[in-house]
Amino acid sequence: MSRPAVSCGDAFAFEVLARDPETGARAGLLHTPHGAIETPVFMPVGTHATVKTLEQADLEELGAAIILANAYHLYLRPGHARVAALGGLHGFMSWPRAILTDSGGYQVFSLSALRRVEEAGVRFQSHLDGSRHLFTPELVMEIEHALGADIIMAFDECTPYPCPRGDAERSMELTLRWARRSAARHAELAGLRADRPPQALFGIVQGSVYPELRARCVEQLLELDLPGYALGGLAVGEPRDDMLAMIATTVPRLPAERPRYLMGVGLPQDMGDAVALGIDMFDCVVPTRNARNGTAFTSTGRVRLRNASLADEAGPLDPQCDCRTCQRYSRAYLRHLFQANEILGLRLATYHNLHYMLRLMAGMRQAILAGTFSHWRAWFRSTYQGG
Amino acid sequence: MSRPAVSCGDAFAFEVLARDPETGARAGLLHTPHGAIETPVFMPVGTHATVKTLEQADLEELGAAIILANAYHLYLRPGHARVAALGGLHGFMSWPRAILTDSGGYQVFSLSALRRVEEAGVRFQSHLDGSRHLFTPELVMEIEHALGADIIMAFDECTPYPCPRGDAERSMELTLRWARRSAARHAELAGLRADRPPQALFGIVQGSVYPELRARCVEQLLELDLPGYALGGLAVGEPRDDMLAMIATTVPRLPAERPRYLMGVGLPQDMGDAVALGIDMFDCVVPTRNARNGTAFTSTGRVRLRNASLADEAGPLDPQCDCRTCQRYSRAYLRHLFQANEILGLRLATYHNLHYMLRLMAGMRQAILAGTFSHWRAWFRSTYQGG
Repeated sequence: MSRPAVSCGDAFAFEVLARDPETGARAGLLHTPHGAIETPVFMPVGTHATVKTLEQADLEELGAAIILANAYHLYLRPGHARVAALGGLHGFMSWPRAILTDSGGYQVFSLSALRRVEEAGVRFQSHLDGSRHLFTPELVMEIEHALGADIIMAFDECTPYPCPRGDAERSMELTLRWARRSAARHAELAGLRADRPPQALFGIVQGSVYPELRARCVEQLLELDLPGYALGGLAVGEPRDDMLAMIATTVPRLPAERPRYLMGVGLPQDMGDAVALGIDMFDCVVPTRNARNGTAFTSTGRVRLRNASLADEAGPLDPQCDCRTCQRYSRAYLRHLFQANEILGLRLATYHNLHYMLRLMAGMRQAILAGTFSHWRAWFRSTYQGG
Repeated sequence: MSRPAVSCGDAFAFEVLARDPETGARAGLLHTPHGAIETPVFMPVGTHATVKTLEQADLEELGAAIILANAYHLYLRPGHARVAALGGLHGFMSWPRAILTDSGGYQVFSLSALRRVEEAGVRFQSHLDGSRHLFTPELVMEIEHALGADIIMAFDECTPYPCPRGDAERSMELTLRWARRSAARHAELAGLRADRPPQALFGIVQGSVYPELRARCVEQLLELDLPGYALGGLAVGEPRDDMLAMIATTVPRLPAERPRYLMGVGLPQDMGDAVALGIDMFDCVVPTRNARNGTAFTSTGRVRLRNASLADEAGPLDPQCDCRTCQRYSRAYLRHLFQANEILGLRLATYHNLHYMLRLMAGMRQAILAGTFSHWRAWFRSTYQGG
């Protein structure tokens, strides 16, 4: 297949504003048709076109510049054509800032039943009603064009961990062929809808924990000359050192002038290391899911909100936090809300955890711009306890 | 038992500002240590010291002047002594405006297991863990003093519907004896804690659907000279006409200069009729519970948010509503959130329904003040469809 013409002009220009002299960390600005994104950036996950428990106004107040939604879920419900008719995702959910849609590759493998991988794509049954579907790279591009997110992901196969080398290689080669088909269909669709804001297609590097597979995947993906590249298939259960090694071996092979997105990573203790290796973008359900499970991130480490020791604590969850939750409510009240299974607890914890993550990223960015990133990392390691 | 000295000075002064010339409706101002309440008023229910799904800032934005919490639930969890140590309910939940606590009489009968009514009080097992408890009027006053709400309710027995006359009479007499004991203990406790803001004890009129029992209950309750009176045991399944008849027979017997509170009523179509009969205060879980069940109140009637007909509707839930939900989100998005079981749906619907109820009350109050309440009722009947 010949190289498709993927062009989105300067709409997705990526400016690297500062580089840390001691690590690969960088601070940048990624332009999109729905605003510029300061990097490194954490993208809150809004799978069903809602970041669970929060209003869009909360996300604006938190300073989220981009959120993530999911092609798989929105295809099944309420349907991508319906979303398109209602103004695309931006109009449908009333979110004026940037959106990224995941392609559904990961979800098809993690959620759906009876999936079968073929060269054409993946046959699967819906996790909602058992209905049968075939996701091809071309259909996924049609879905992501209908949803209209600023950044769309190529359809890939996400390998589990552990994954034998032969399987990982076959899967990576399939992901590459699907990436080429994704890019070709994306180019066709982009030509058909020049009246709407352009969308940027990001490619996904697979290859499990095998450096040479990752290297080969990058090499061939680069032929597509995409506006951004993601590292997929990580944070799926492999040892942390393997994850960091895969980042370290992959990032230097990617073009310096394009954003790099590490998919599915969002533990506070991982962010600094990944940024130091040159990652610009992150998404993860951890801050929001942990919040709903009653685990909060604070400046000194994790706090279990159901812990009995909080029951009489009149002080805020994190005395160093200036979020709305910490400004108004006590640890005792938060614990009570969780004990009583009250929705407000989920919301207050979610708001706090996202505030924590977004401030963490903003702190790193500021440090990189100021040339003090190494100090920032030392400070973080000395204050944040536990995993 | 001699009449106890219940005094809360002018802290709970009730000013009747206007009376409708054609009905018993009136507009007033009920002063409390945590602000003045414009009546008629609807009090959102925050059973566990949270109005489900909402933040306290949302309630402030909605203009809620008083909310309700529940002594039964808070006694069981997190415990009234704990709440007292954390600054009382106002401090615990960070709510600076007025609070009313229900005594738990209704909850003991509707929620707990193996309850046994004795002269002393009610023995019951917790609906949470089966632990055994005895609620006496005295203990309930201690709980309500510890919680520190502005308005506290006497401990009563709430009869179910239907209820034979003999049972209703015995129960009403018991409620009267408990009211006297509640008032006596309240007076003692008030004397012990003169350093904290005063609390107003309201009596509860019982008597099922028997006018002569209601009349006798009022007559004897009035001997306690309480700062406010509630109508209990209604909206428990009796025909609507019976409910209205009980209000009509009871209200004229109550002192004109004291607020009248109809417990547990909150259907839009009932509010105008009850206000016309002279009710000043209401509480009900209907607006918030219905919201979570996917039923919204609108200017033209109820809307089922899961209804398939909403799936492609780009317009707001209620075009005549200026609440945050209707200003930003479409019917299609709301329906999607409910179909996907997303918490944001519960929250947006709750915010809308409470906005609806509070605006409904404000509209009635304005009409009473302007001398146009009959026009308001005619307008409401002509626009609001269904029950």
